[in-house]
Formats: sequence, structure tokens, C-alpha cells
Amino acid sequence: MSISTLSFTANGITYQPPAAPIVVICLDGSADEYLDASLAFDRMPHLKKMIQQGYRGMVRGALPSFTNVNNSSIVTGVAPAVHGICGNFFYDAALDQEVMMNAASYLRAETLLAAAANAGRKVAVVTAKEKLRDILSHNMQGIAFSAEKAATATIATHGIDDVEQLTGQPAPAIYSADASLFVLRAGNALLRAGRADFLYLSLTDFMQHTYAPEAPESLDFYAAIDHELGQLLAAGAIVGATADHGMNAKQLPDGSPNVMYVETLLDEQFGKGSRVICPITDPYVKHHGALGSYVVVHLKDASRAAEIGRWLLAQPGITEVYDRDTAVRLLEQPADRTGDLVVLSARNVVLGRTPAHHDLSALDSGLRSHGGRYEEMVPLLISHPLNAIYMRKAAGDARNFDVFDFTINGTGQ
Amino acid sequence: MSISTLSFTANGITYQPPAAPIVVICLDGSADEYLDASLAFDRMPHLKKMIQQGYRGMVRGALPSFTNVNNSSIVTGVAPAVHGICGNFFYDAALDQEVMMNAASYLRAETLLAAAANAGRKVAVVTAKEKLRDILSHNMQGIAFSAEKAATATIATHGIDDVEQLTGQPAPAIYSADASLFVLRAGNALLRAGRADFLYLSLTDFMQHTYAPEAPESLDFYAAIDHELGQLLAAGAIVGATADHGMNAKQLPDGSPNVMYVETLLDEQFGKGSRVICPITDPYVKHHGALGSYVVVHLKDASRAAEIGRWLLAQPGITEVYDRDTAVRLLEQPADRTGDLVVLSARNVVLGRTPAHHDLSALDSGLRSHGGRYEEMVPLLISHPLNAIYMRKAAGDARNFDVFDFTINGTGQ
Repeated sequence: MSISTLSFTANGITYQPPAAPIVVICLDGSADEYLDASLAFDRMPHLKKMIQQGYRGMVRGALPSFTNVNNSSIVTGVAPAVHGICGNFFYDAALDQEVMMNAASYLRAETLLAAAANAGRKVAVVTAKEKLRDILSHNMQGIAFSAEKAATATIATHGIDDVEQLTGQPAPAIYSADASLFVLRAGNALLRAGRADFLYLSLTDFMQHTYAPEAPESLDFYAAIDHELGQLLAAGAIVGATADHGMNAKQLPDGSPNVMYVETLLDEQFGKGSRVICPITDPYVKHHGALGSYVVVHLKDASRAAEIGRWLLAQPGITEVYDRDTAVRLLEQPADRTGDLVVLSARNVVLGRTPAHHDLSALDSGLRSHGGRYEEMVPLLISHPLNAIYMRKAAGDARNFDVFDFTINGTGQ
Repeated sequence: MSISTLSFTANGITYQPPAAPIVVICLDGSADEYLDASLAFDRMPHLKKMIQQGYRGMVRGALPSFTNVNNSSIVTGVAPAVHGICGNFFYDAALDQEVMMNAASYLRAETLLAAAANAGRKVAVVTAKEKLRDILSHNMQGIAFSAEKAATATIATHGIDDVEQLTGQPAPAIYSADASLFVLRAGNALLRAGRADFLYLSLTDFMQHTYAPEAPESLDFYAAIDHELGQLLAAGAIVGATADHGMNAKQLPDGSPNVMYVETLLDEQFGKGSRVICPITDPYVKHHGALGSYVVVHLKDASRAAEIGRWLLAQPGITEVYDRDTAVRLLEQPADRTGDLVVLSARNVVLGRTPAHHDLSALDSGLRSHGGRYEEMVPLLISHPLNAIYMRKAAGDARNFDVFDFTINGTGQ
């Protein structure tokens, strides 16, 4: 098969692909500690070889450190301020509605995947959760499906209709290790069948929400990831991997969830009428109870933002509070989809709305979550040696959403 | 020899030591990436075994992420707000003097080392740089010396007078890998000679300031550290290790230092008269040019703190600005030794005072430094399995200055 090496540009970044398959993986929720533990126990031999031959370092993700925010950044190469996806939900003040942002109609930037397809690459996007598929495959000619809905993919809508035959297994349960492994297996099958030469494989973080890095379940999971990684490398792919966010335990010493209910706090201190949006909220709440370390506040009286912000920042467990303008600049947020205040919490603290908004009984085990500053730094892994320019770039303030740039442009001479 | 198992208390924390040697190491400047690289290339087999049998995780250091701040925290078990050491320098407004804080007279907390000695442990403190010795050995009965001044240690002042004979090598140059390795070798010699059973070994970060994690020089350095670690473990020690701070490249794409001169910026915008303190400044500037990612500002007119703080936070490269009260609370600073404003910069940016205050020509190679938020998270390594209580503690918001607590109390049943 011939692989297109035509260059293409998306959002001002030009990509000059080699005549080799490109595979980028988003290891959802992979705090660096997961790799550390699995490598220490010799459970990721292919990753180890990849690090020896290529690159491993830390990069800064987009905030809030949530899945769809960072996946959107990865496939566009730009920050949320540009692509507009800053959570699963935002509050549209003009419409007085809480709006779900899981559709491509909310995406304000083109994707490099669409541009690659237009340049002749055979592009495939495989995600664990269906919620990401629409955004990631926006305007893209190629294959795009989720593990979750693999059984119902059709040529007309997904560019493929035989996913289960291709992978040799039925669509997995979404709350499982297999939901992620299926994505990697599908990627391998597409690559080996010659049906794709430019792949984005986006996993899900059910396992990381549920198990700590050193748990046997985590080690087995990463060993299985490593097996698929080895297959991708054996097939001649240039592989880049990063994470959308890290993961930390958000628990009190007794193991119970360490939650601050921000709307309740504001109601009690300043009177009712403010609205707290938890942008981690989505239809899949079993593993985190819609609790993360980043919330957006819409005040009843926005003229009191400075006063209320100061009060919030004085509450133990809250570590950062920004007004809208500062959140736009420092946190790279789209001004019309953030709030009067943006609030982040400590490494072991999550922020909720009110107790009634969160079903903690849905949590299977202790609460592990993300969204804040302490899940911002994530690994960057590249299978091939970086050239001098990208070694310098990696030593600066490289971002997880530079992963396609590093994988494509960083490995050429 | 018999080892005391009497419990002791320092700053409200009780330590119940086992009848085994306790060795805590501060791997100065060891961003986790240094361990990752050395482990990936199989250069730290003893550390790998230690991780398999014990614990490796990430912990939050004290801010500013400087050496003496975090060393002071490690030996006291408390934050800078309590022990008072918040940099190498502070500005004493009452005296109108810039005061160096390298003496124990500035320490406001007792050390757990002194308490251990009082409980019958044979305590030894070995540091690379002389500047730390006075603080770390405050009120302590035992051995305390630096590699830098090893040749001049005397029984009366250091509890030892034969350091070079003991280690079999002369005192090393301070800007060298040997400055750190000498500390570990001395620790091993003291342990094996039965002259100490409770050791704190504090290295120096010249190598990390100079070399990136994957540099051959770094790999060789960490391999040599690993050799000493193996000796300590073979001698039966329970070993805990952490870092005082991480390390990041602070460079522009062309490799030149990425510096913002804060006093110059303030002079230009608000008129002369404000004073910027770079608390990284010390007599050893060759490797960082007194440039870090954290400065303290004393304003000519403190009533303008809010206005000037907002302006500073709007400057690209500056990521956090706090007034005094907020710095005291969120950054755990002593109120009387911080400024009207505390300013932190981005992962790849350092803050200076004015160009005249910094000799960039003294930098041997590209600038790598620390002091800010992106050097806050550091590894915690414990040679023995953690008990259930400390596994939960590790999964919370554990601190690098809990390292003695983890090493002593975390490994018992």
C-alpha cells in the first residue's frame, strides 16, 4: 500500500508526515505513576524499549483536566480557548440553559485528522466512549467508531460496518478494561488490514478511576496495553502517546470522598441564586460521581465576583480562584463558555455542586478523580528519536496536545 | 550494636523507630524524570528492587521549591510557615536589610534529628553544601558535616574529624557529581562503622541544573547513586528518599535563558522603589544565576498591592500572584519573611530582579532551574512495604517533608 506524505495544515500548524503509519494514543487518565508502577514490575517491555529508543517526558495538559477538553485539544493541536470545548457542560447565560458540549457543533476549530484525510491519509479514529466520536471525527473522511457502539457502526455513518468481525470480539462493556483494550485491538486490526495509516486511539479511564497505580488490576491492564503497543510497533507504526489528564485519590483518611459542595457553600454564605457547573458531569458517572477538581461559578450578582472569589480562595481545600478574564488568559478558556469564577481544588479534594446533585452511592470503590492542577501534567511518549528541534521543544513547556506534532514532525530529520 | 527504639516527638509528630538503621536521602533536584530515564536504561537496579518491594509515588513539596526551604521542612516535618525558612534570603522591612537565612538562628522549629538523638539514636547529617549544615544540625547531638568542608570537620564542632579517612577520598569540588556521591559514601561508611544508625543525607543539584534526565552524564550520576543505595540497603537500612524540588529547562527555543526581570518591569510600569527578592540567591550561583520561578516583591506603596498584583498576573509568563495573606495561607509562608506580593512563573520561565542583578555569563550551559509550581511535585521512595495507614496517607496529599514519618512509622505494622 502507498502512504501519502503530502503535508497538511490545521489551525496554523503544518504536519509533514512520513511514509509510515502514524498512531497516536490517548491513554485516558494515565498519570505518570501508572507507567512507573508497570515499568517497575517489568509489565511493559514494549514501552520500555520504546522509551529507550524514543522519548519519554512530561507535558502540560489543557485545563480543566478532563477527557473531552483534552481530546479536543489533541485532535486540533490548540487550547480550549480556540476549540471551545471546555468541559462536558457549560451554562449558556443568554438561554438560561445548561448545555451539553458533546457534539461537534460546539467545536470551533478544524481537526488535524480531517486535514490528514484531505491530504490522502487513511484516517481512523477509535474511541472507547461514544460521547467523543462526534467531536473527534468532525468533517473527517474516514473511519470513526467507538468501542461502546462498535456493533452498530455502519459504512454510511462510521466508514466501517464490520468492527466486531475485524477485531474478533464483541463490543465490550463500557465500565471495563476491555473498553480500552478493544480500542487498541481495533487500531491494530485496521492498521494490519491496510484500512488505516493514520490513527487516533482514545481510551477510557474507568480503570484509573477505580484502581491505584500499584494495584494488580492496574498492572494487568497496562500489561495488556503494552501487548497492543508492541503489535503497533511491530507493524511499523510511529507511535505517540500521551494522556488527557492524570488521576489522584480524592479521599479523606477513612477512605470516604473528600468533597466540597461549592453551591451549598455559596448559598449559605451569600444567599441563594448562584449556579455551580461541574463540567466533568456526563452520562457516565459511575466511576467519579460527577466530582472533579474544577468547577465554574455563575454568580447571582456578577459585580460581587472579586469579593466572593476572595472568600472562596480562603476556604481550605480550594487552591485557585479566577475571574472570567483571568481564566480566559491563564487557563485558556473560551470566555463565553466559562463563568464569573473558576474554582480549582487541592490534590486530594473534589468540588461538587450540592449534595443532592451527586450520587456518591454510585461510586464502586474509593473516589479517584481529576480536573484540577494536580492532574495537569501527563506523560508524552514517542516511539522514535526526537530531532534536535523537538528535543528543545520537549525541554520547554510542551503540551499534551502537541502529541501529533511531536509524532509526525518531531521524528523526521 | 544496639539501636534505640525509644519513640520521640518533634513538632507534634511522634516517631516510633524500629531497631534498624534509618536512612533518609534528599535527592536534590531529582525531578521524577531523572528516575524514569535511569530506570528505563536499567541504570538503577537497586532502586528498581526497592520500588518493587517498597513504595514509589509522587508527593508535594514545600514552596518555594528551593533547597533550604525543603531541607528545613524535611528535618522538621512541617511547612515553612512553621519553621520559618522560606528561601536563602528575605527582606527585613523593619531593619531595611536583605537578610541571609542560612543560619539555624532563623529556624523556628525543632528538628526531628535532634529529637532522635535525644532518644538515643546515633544521628548523622551529611550534606553536600556547607550552607545547609548549620540549620540541619541545629541543637543536635551527633555527627554533622558537609562534603564541601569535609576536610575541616572537627570533633568539637562536627562530631567527627576523620571524614576523608572514613570515606577514603578527599573532599570533592562542590560543582561536581562527586559532591553528592561523597555524601552517600560517607553515609555508608558511617553506617557500616557503627557510628550512626539514623542518617539524613542531603545531596546537591549541580548535575540536574546542568544535565537533562536523558543525558549520559545524568544516567551515569544516577547509576552511581544507585550503587550507594544498594550498599545502604545491603547494610540493613530502611531507606526513604525524596527530593527538595524538581527541575525544568527555563529556556527560549534558541537555548537562551527565559527570564522576566520583575523589578525592572515594575520600575517601568509603576515607577522606581519596589524591591524584588529572589530567594534562590545564595553564594553558589554558577549553576542557576540566582534565577528561579519564585520571587517576593516589596512594594514602595503596599496599598497598591491589589492593583500591581493584577497587572503582574496579566504579564505572559507569570502564572501566580498572591498578596501576603494569601501567600501565608496557600503557600504556607511565614508572614514576616514574605513580601507584599509573591510571584510564580511558568514551567519554562524564571523570574529575576534586574538584568544587573544576574550574571548569566556564569551559566555553564542552558538554564535549568526551579522554585515554582512546576517543580513542586517530587518522588517519594520507601524501601520497605508501607502499612495500610500509610498507603492511604500516600494516596492523599502526602508531602515530601513527611519522608521521615513514612520511613519510620509507615514501614512498621
